[in-house]
Amino acid sequence: MPTAVHDLATPALVVDATALEHNLATMAAALPGSRLRPHVKAHKCTALAHQQREHGHAHFCAATPREVIGMAFSGLGADLLLANECVDSERLRALAKLDARVTIAVDSAETIVAAAAAGLREVLIDVNVGLPRCGCLPDAAGRLADDARAAGLTVRGVMGYEGHVVGLESAPSRTDECARSMEKLAAAHALVGGDIVSAGGTGTYAINDVATEIQAGSYALMDTAYAKLGLPFSAALHVAATVVHVNSRYAVADCGLKALGMDHGNPSIADAEVRFCSDEHVTFVPHDVKLRVGDRVLVAPAHVDPTIAYHERLCVVDGPGLGAVVIDEWAIDLRGW
Amino acid sequence: MPTAVHDLATPALVVDATALEHNLATMAAALPGSRLRPHVKAHKCTALAHQQREHGHAHFCAATPREVIGMAFSGLGADLLLANECVDSERLRALAKLDARVTIAVDSAETIVAAAAAGLREVLIDVNVGLPRCGCLPDAAGRLADDARAAGLTVRGVMGYEGHVVGLESAPSRTDECARSMEKLAAAHALVGGDIVSAGGTGTYAINDVATEIQAGSYALMDTAYAKLGLPFSAALHVAATVVHVNSRYAVADCGLKALGMDHGNPSIADAEVRFCSDEHVTFVPHDVKLRVGDRVLVAPAHVDPTIAYHERLCVVDGPGLGAVVIDEWAIDLRGW
Repeated sequence: MPTAVHDLATPALVVDATALEHNLATMAAALPGSRLRPHVKAHKCTALAHQQREHGHAHFCAATPREVIGMAFSGLGADLLLANECVDSERLRALAKLDARVTIAVDSAETIVAAAAAGLREVLIDVNVGLPRCGCLPDAAGRLADDARAAGLTVRGVMGYEGHVVGLESAPSRTDECARSMEKLAAAHALVGGDIVSAGGTGTYAINDVATEIQAGSYALMDTAYAKLGLPFSAALHVAATVVHVNSRYAVADCGLKALGMDHGNPSIADAEVRFCSDEHVTFVPHDVKLRVGDRVLVAPAHVDPTIAYHERLCVVDGPGLGAVVIDEWAIDLRGW
Repeated sequence: MPTAVHDLATPALVVDATALEHNLATMAAALPGSRLRPHVKAHKCTALAHQQREHGHAHFCAATPREVIGMAFSGLGADLLLANECVDSERLRALAKLDARVTIAVDSAETIVAAAAAGLREVLIDVNVGLPRCGCLPDAAGRLADDARAAGLTVRGVMGYEGHVVGLESAPSRTDECARSMEKLAAAHALVGGDIVSAGGTGTYAINDVATEIQAGSYALMDTAYAKLGLPFSAALHVAATVVHVNSRYAVADCGLKALGMDHGNPSIADAEVRFCSDEHVTFVPHDVKLRVGDRVLVAPAHVDPTIAYHERLCVVDGPGLGAVVIDEWAIDLRGW
C-alpha cells in the first residue's frame, strides 16, 4: 500500500480521518444514538457505516436495495430503512429474507401491495413535504396507513424529506421552509400514528425539531455545496489527482467527469480556479506558478454522493494535505442497485 | 436472464442492437479499417470493441491505462493508443509489459522521460489544437519529437483533439473551426514526421480531412447532446427505469444522478418533460396520463461516456422500445483507471 497521498495512483478518493472523526463526533453530540439515522447513500461504504455505529448510531437508512443488503451482511442490520419506493418483487423478497430488521417507505397502493407480497413486515408512510419527488399528499397518509395495516404491515410512522430545503444557503429561509415542510409531516403523522417521524438531512439536522430521527448522510464527508452553509462539519473528502500538463496559462490534472458527480457543477481546487472538466481531466489555473507535471493536487467535489459512486475504494489518510499518510483502505461496497 | 426490457431490474443500461449495428456499419462505410481508431472510453466495453473489430477496425484508442490493459487482455492489442498523458511509472511499466502494441501520447519533457523509463517504445506527439487541455504548442512539436527520439522512442506522428469543435451545433462553424484546428496539427506534423495524424471525434468524423485516423467513440451508442448535430447515427443507448411514483402533476422513475452523467444536463424521456434528477430519481411530466407505478420508461442520457462509467453491464436488446427482447449481456469491463 502506498504510504502517502502523493504516492497514490490517481484519481483516488482520499478521506481525511481527522476531519471524518470530527464530523462524526460533532453530529453524534448533536443527535446521539437513534436521533440520527445515518444515510449510507452518501458514502456507500460499510466500513464508514461501522464508524458511525461506533459513534452510537445503530439505525441506518439507504436509498437502494443493494445498500440495504450490503449493510445487513456487514452486521449492521439492527434497523435498516429503505427510504425509497420499490416495486421490484425480486429485490423486495431478497430484503424480506435478510437476517435484519428492514422497514421500507411506501406512498401508494402499488408500493404497499409490493411490500406485503414480498413478505416485508414494516413500513413508513412516505409523505410529500414539498420536494417534487415521491411521497403521498399529507391528507392521504392516514388512508394509506389503513391500507398498509389491512395488508398485514406494521406502520412505524412517517417519513418526508425536505430535499428542496436542505441546500438553501440563507439560514433564515432554511429554518422557515423546514418548519413549513415539517408542519405537513406532523399533520400526516397525526393521521398515521406510530413512533417514527423520519426526515431531514445535513442542511437541516440542527433546525428540524419535528423529526424523531434525522436522515443525514453528507455530514460525514461533506462537499463544496454543503460547505457554503456554514455548518460545523469539515471537508473530509477529496479526489487526489496528478498534474499531467502545465503551461503558462493553465494546468491539467487527471480527475474528470468519470471521477466526479457534476450535477452541482465544477469541483474546486485550493489556490486555483477550475475552468472545466472533461472525461478524464480537470483544467485549472493555479495561483502557484511552481506547479509541475507529476505533482499532486486535491480536488474537492461539488456533490459527494454521485462522486463516491464512481469509485471502488476510499483511501483513509491521517490528516489534511498531500503529505498525509495512508492508514487504511475502505471498499465502496454498496455501489449499484 | 430477463426476456424483455420491461422485465429488467432497473436502472439498467439498454443497448438497441439494431441501432448499434446501424451506427457501426455507417461509420465503417465512411471510415473503413484503420481510417477509424474507435475510442473505447465512450463505452468501456470489450464486447462492444469486438463488434467494432468485426466492422474492420483493428486499431483502438483509450483514455486510461486500465482501458488499454483490458483491451490487450481481450485480444484487441494489435495497435492500442493511450491518447492521454500519464506519468504513473507503475502503470506505464504495466503497459510496456503487455503482449500488445502500445503507443502513448506525450506533450512534455516529463511525459517523454516517463514513457521511455517505463520501457514503452512508441509515442505520438500530442498537440494543442485549441481545446484548453493537454498538448504542446504546434511550433514546439518538432523539438519534443527530437527529444523523444533522443530518448530512444519511435515517434509515429502527432495527435490533436479538437474537443472544442466536435459539439458545435452549427455545421458551418464546426467545419471552419475544425479546419482551423487541423491547420495547427498539420503544421506540427510537418515538424514531427511519422505516418500518423490522429484526431477527431464523432462530431467531426466527416469533415476532418487532415487526420489519417479519427478517434471517434460516441457514434456507436450516441447521446442527446450529439443527437442535436444531425449526424447519421441513431440513439442506441437508454437507461431503462421503473416508475415508482405517479401523481396528477408528475411521475418519478428510479434513474438518478448515480445512473447518469450529468455534465451535459438532464436526460430526456420520450413524450415527457424531465424536471430534475436526484440521487436515485428522475422527476418528469409525462404526456401520457395513463402511466402507472411499475411501468418502465426509457431515459436517454445527455452524455454517454460518464453515464456508462456508472454501470456494471450493458443489456443488449433486439430493437427499440420497452418490448425489445434481451439477447445478450456485456460487461462494462474497462471501468476505472
